[in-house]
Amino acid sequence: MKKIAVILSGCGVFDGSEIYESVLTLLRIAQQGSEYQCMAPDIEQLHVINHLSGEVAEGESRNVLVEAARLARGEIIDLATANPDDYDALIFPGGFGAAKNLCDFALKGADARINADVKSFAQAIHTAGKPVGLICIAPAMTPLIFGEGATCTIGTDNDTASAIEAMGGKHQNCPVNDIVIDQERNIISTPAYMLAGSITEAASGINKLVDEVLQRA
Amino acid sequence: MKKIAVILSGCGVFDGSEIYESVLTLLRIAQQGSEYQCMAPDIEQLHVINHLSGEVAEGESRNVLVEAARLARGEIIDLATANPDDYDALIFPGGFGAAKNLCDFALKGADARINADVKSFAQAIHTAGKPVGLICIAPAMTPLIFGEGATCTIGTDNDTASAIEAMGGKHQNCPVNDIVIDQERNIISTPAYMLAGSITEAASGINKLVDEVLQRA
Repeated sequence: MKKIAVILSGCGVFDGSEIYESVLTLLRIAQQGSEYQCMAPDIEQLHVINHLSGEVAEGESRNVLVEAARLARGEIIDLATANPDDYDALIFPGGFGAAKNLCDFALKGADARINADVKSFAQAIHTAGKPVGLICIAPAMTPLIFGEGATCTIGTDNDTASAIEAMGGKHQNCPVNDIVIDQERNIISTPAYMLAGSITEAASGINKLVDEVLQRA
Repeated sequence: MKKIAVILSGCGVFDGSEIYESVLTLLRIAQQGSEYQCMAPDIEQLHVINHLSGEVAEGESRNVLVEAARLARGEIIDLATANPDDYDALIFPGGFGAAKNLCDFALKGADARINADVKSFAQAIHTAGKPVGLICIAPAMTPLIFGEGATCTIGTDNDTASAIEAMGGKHQNCPVNDIVIDQERNIISTPAYMLAGSITEAASGINKLVDEVLQRA
């Protein structure tokens, strides 16, 4: 049975992992007869967003691992303790947490830096020849993890695509129900809620991504 | 197009709505070509549980509507402002929030009382002849909403079933992949994570429940 590492970044689209993308990813992995293990870095979130008002919740702070544990029903491990050798593939769901907590792309754009544990875990999976899937805004980490020339999609947003290219990545436009594959590097990405107007649209691309990752795992 | 009200109770299995159950419910509604509207009461949670440690987070407080907004990508309304006439059916996902925030069954057992807005909204849906679905522990509210003799399942847990019967409800044991229907009252329930060992097991019963609710809506 294949075992897939899923790196979460909190719990909620505006300051953590996008919940639907994360659950759709886990559901598809399980439906295809594989296992998953959720993991997240034990760090403070950039901030807390009140998801009702859309405003920053001043004075509040939350921990990425503790909040991501909500999305995993408590069945989660600290990314710093995870062993890449235990997994056949890696998937990053999206949500602003990927660009606020796992790296700081949401603040710094092309000058973004990535969390050291996220980078080393993902690079270990990659250099072992295993596939990595990135969903929604998570592909903004592609050049930070895989270096120059790595190809990905975040859908069709020109500003985000330009920032990825400025970091050395290559961007391909992609519709919500499809995936972009970097054949050479074994990287798969899909736009999901960068473009999705509904949960079924998000599922269409995520299911295709998970299937491709599992087939390569 | 049928429009289904989904009442949430926060965001996270131990102090709010069970995330997988909620997303599976929304996904199935959308996949079947119907619409959903999430709603939640604007009240404080009973408490906040750290989902990594399982412990109560002392000194922390969170609002049910604000946290439920995470599960709805911000697309949620205050239950107190929702008009039952706008909906063809109602579904309650589970999670401890249903028994801690929507009512106090988790604390009081057979002496539980239910939130007034939850009760009046659900009763209005019910007395209009529309179906109501309840998932996981949410069916503990069955006698509080529908009165004596209303039939439901929470799976096979004897203590919980006894408390429901002590409140005047009728309990039927049910496997995770099935539903219990109170034909007379148009109430459908399924055990989900009261029994589920995996997200696919939870989905098997929830999909059946949503399909039955939609067919009756």
